[in-house]
Amino acid sequence: VSQILTREYLESLDAQDQLAPFRDAFQLPGSGQYFNGNSLGPRPKSTREAMKQVMEAHWGCHGGASWYGQDWMQRPARVGGKIAHLIGAAADEIIIADSTSINLAKMVMTALDIQAGRHVIVTEEGNFPTDLYILKDIAARVSGVEIRIVATEDLADALDDGCALLALTHVNYKTSRQHDMAALTKKAHEVGALALWDLSHSAGAVHVDLNASQADFAVGCTYKFLNGGPGAPAYLFVAKRHQNGAPALPGWMGHAAPFDFSPNFIPAEGMTRHLTGTPPILALAALECGVDLMVEAGVGAVVEKSARLGDVTIELVEQKLSDTDIEVLSPRHTAQRGAQICLKTVQASALVGRLENRGLIVDFRPPNIIRLGLAALYVRYQDIWDVVDALGEEYKALRRVEQA
Amino acid sequence: VSQILTREYLESLDAQDQLAPFRDAFQLPGSGQYFNGNSLGPRPKSTREAMKQVMEAHWGCHGGASWYGQDWMQRPARVGGKIAHLIGAAADEIIIADSTSINLAKMVMTALDIQAGRHVIVTEEGNFPTDLYILKDIAARVSGVEIRIVATEDLADALDDGCALLALTHVNYKTSRQHDMAALTKKAHEVGALALWDLSHSAGAVHVDLNASQADFAVGCTYKFLNGGPGAPAYLFVAKRHQNGAPALPGWMGHAAPFDFSPNFIPAEGMTRHLTGTPPILALAALECGVDLMVEAGVGAVVEKSARLGDVTIELVEQKLSDTDIEVLSPRHTAQRGAQICLKTVQASALVGRLENRGLIVDFRPPNIIRLGLAALYVRYQDIWDVVDALGEEYKALRRVEQA
Repeated sequence: VSQILTREYLESLDAQDQLAPFRDAFQLPGSGQYFNGNSLGPRPKSTREAMKQVMEAHWGCHGGASWYGQDWMQRPARVGGKIAHLIGAAADEIIIADSTSINLAKMVMTALDIQAGRHVIVTEEGNFPTDLYILKDIAARVSGVEIRIVATEDLADALDDGCALLALTHVNYKTSRQHDMAALTKKAHEVGALALWDLSHSAGAVHVDLNASQADFAVGCTYKFLNGGPGAPAYLFVAKRHQNGAPALPGWMGHAAPFDFSPNFIPAEGMTRHLTGTPPILALAALECGVDLMVEAGVGAVVEKSARLGDVTIELVEQKLSDTDIEVLSPRHTAQRGAQICLKTVQASALVGRLENRGLIVDFRPPNIIRLGLAALYVRYQDIWDVVDALGEEYKALRRVEQA
Repeated sequence: VSQILTREYLESLDAQDQLAPFRDAFQLPGSGQYFNGNSLGPRPKSTREAMKQVMEAHWGCHGGASWYGQDWMQRPARVGGKIAHLIGAAADEIIIADSTSINLAKMVMTALDIQAGRHVIVTEEGNFPTDLYILKDIAARVSGVEIRIVATEDLADALDDGCALLALTHVNYKTSRQHDMAALTKKAHEVGALALWDLSHSAGAVHVDLNASQADFAVGCTYKFLNGGPGAPAYLFVAKRHQNGAPALPGWMGHAAPFDFSPNFIPAEGMTRHLTGTPPILALAALECGVDLMVEAGVGAVVEKSARLGDVTIELVEQKLSDTDIEVLSPRHTAQRGAQICLKTVQASALVGRLENRGLIVDFRPPNIIRLGLAALYVRYQDIWDVVDALGEEYKALRRVEQA
């Protein structure tokens, strides 16, 4: 179809890439060819100073007074507001708290509160496991709640006027298939259901516009394409029209006046009510470094480059690996996939190990999937040449071993 | 009653104190007289290297491979096992996860699962607010659950054979009153209820023996007397006899094989099943520094010194502040109080500000309480002299201002 790609051509794309300078903002694992940012994004170098500041200048010098004196109390909303900018939300519709799983539980319970009288939650087979576990647990505990788990192609049909909520992950972790958020949210709304999106594989990777899509709730992790650090805290989004509801799992940090220590819960204004425990200040300091880099780069440019990296990957696999069993599992159309390309091959596990030995870090998902995370801030076009080239060489080497 | 205390005598106690060297292990806020460790413990100096290692040598150099290669997956249990040692639990009965509030929710739901057919949870007025908020939220969502909130003196009477759970905070945050854990747990068991203890103000401060007390569940925060850092992750304890139950709010990190990505939740062995989201590795690295110092010092010596610091504080207040309205709100008997002394005075708010101006950092709890955190690892006997002396001077200064 298209021209034959060469390493020189890909190098020329890197030379023109306006995002190229951001690569130096990260400490890249191994030899610097890191395709695992869809699992754990690399460390922004700025975390060193940021962590030193919060640990030594704040915690160390001022102790507990830092909760107000150093703006610690404001950090969950401040960092949330920056993430909002990346995914089409208003700054006061997102806050940082807990983990994606816990936030999902909170948002599902909040949705059920709003949808009194409706008890069905629709989701899909192949949703990320933790999302399914949380949904099933709520169904087991809250009287009447039912989880309807259907195949992707049956989602629209599964929505009826008994549905309280459509709960989906926007970009599938295993295939990189991207849902049409606006279309599915519209279908949910047509039957009176609300829509909750898990953006763990979306934020900082693909175009997301929560408000243009009329999304009701969202959650997401920050340690993948937002480069927030291992186990970084997650975020949650509640559309402004739903923000007056009572929070689920309410804790003292969500109280209107936490330091009054009232036995009665009075929710804080806006998203703050969805905080539960004490904000994780050290983790927030690292997270903010990753988010700042994404904001500085401009999410539009990041999304555009991510899509192009994906196109190049698919083209190269087709051009260079046609004599292998390696096939592209991810959608061809950029609007239908995430910022990773998933390859299927019976040799997946062995190949991932062999690539790692060459300093090329990619990800294996059992039983037979190789995931190539294409994070626009630090993955170069030439890196894609190298990893596809190495896949071809190692595939042949494996075949020689088998035949010997 | 006893001898008149002098600063010289208190200095002599410091000179004999085997824990004195630990003071240098902390970066102490202000001028180093920090009585706010019951709110946020100070920074262990070792956090600098520990954080550098996990951020740069692990995350930076190895990225996501650190989950196995650098033992990240084991850290929640590893740090939990060290805390277990401080509070009379077996190493495999405690794990680090989430916040105290979220863990409380998990443990309450786990207890309700075990206690099928019983629906009443007994707690007390004056429990820490977040505990009450979580209990009430569960009662509002889970059919049939009822929260019975009674005065402290009515706790034993409130237990009957409809009770599923007694849920209490061991040491009260406002008065420093300590419950008799063994006696109350026994009373709960006598009627077939289980007992859940919030140890936020206990661990690293007072004698706790969960297993000798036959406690069923416990939770606690780590940023007070364990010096784990602002918003450090919390811990949870499940007695071994209850560990086969299904976890509440189950997430992918609690699965027996998280990287199989099964749609069906199969709980991991032991406490790991109570993990929900991805462990917060950076926060865990800081936390472990605080816990290691406590383990190194020996919790027995810490508890003993804490009690003595409290005795000295009470004696000094009585000797030096008898002509003020400042009164000791905390119990006199060491076994009945925590490692803080709470003082009541109408001037509390003004006095706390004036002490702060002198570099003496104490804590105010509205409307009229001054809290003096007496953390044995870095508070000296002579510091108590100085803070009580300053209280007397500033009280008089305030009176002069009023009379002028």
